[in-house]
Amino acid sequence: MPLKARRCLISELLKERGWTQRLLAEKSGVSEKVISFYTTDRRTQMSLVIAVQLADALDVSPRDLYEWTQE
Amino acid sequence: MPLKARRCLISELLKERGWTQRLLAEKSGVSEKVISFYTTDRRTQMSLVIAVQLADALDVSPRDLYEWTQE
Repeated sequence: MPLKARRCLISELLKERGWTQRLLAEKSGVSEKVISFYTTDRRTQMSLVIAVQLADALDVSPRDLYEWTQE
Repeated sequence: MPLKARRCLISELLKERGWTQRLLAEKSGVSEKVISFYTTDRRTQMSLVIAVQLADALDVSPRDLYEWTQE
């Protein structure tokens, strides 16, 4: 069913691990600037490849980076 | 680490389940046309939201839709 990304959960995932966005950038290879775009919802259409890089670094599924709602 | 989507695995996932692209379209809410773009690699930059819809329908992680290589 058509889904919509409701809320980015990266900040919560970082808080749980006591990580900074910089540390996530170093571990994932995604720039700190791009990460902050997503955590502040200035960018919402995350690509799968960025999601996989971030999710691998956080050891979660790419699906867990967002709260989803049915459209 | 920067990753690159090497090969789309949706066709394999469909074959394993004996599904058609049409059935995946019905189950996922993603149009058959868009699915064929990805399975024929005419489009490679899949968005996370499309990946989550397809992965949910296939009951896999969005990560499993592609073979990945380190860039």
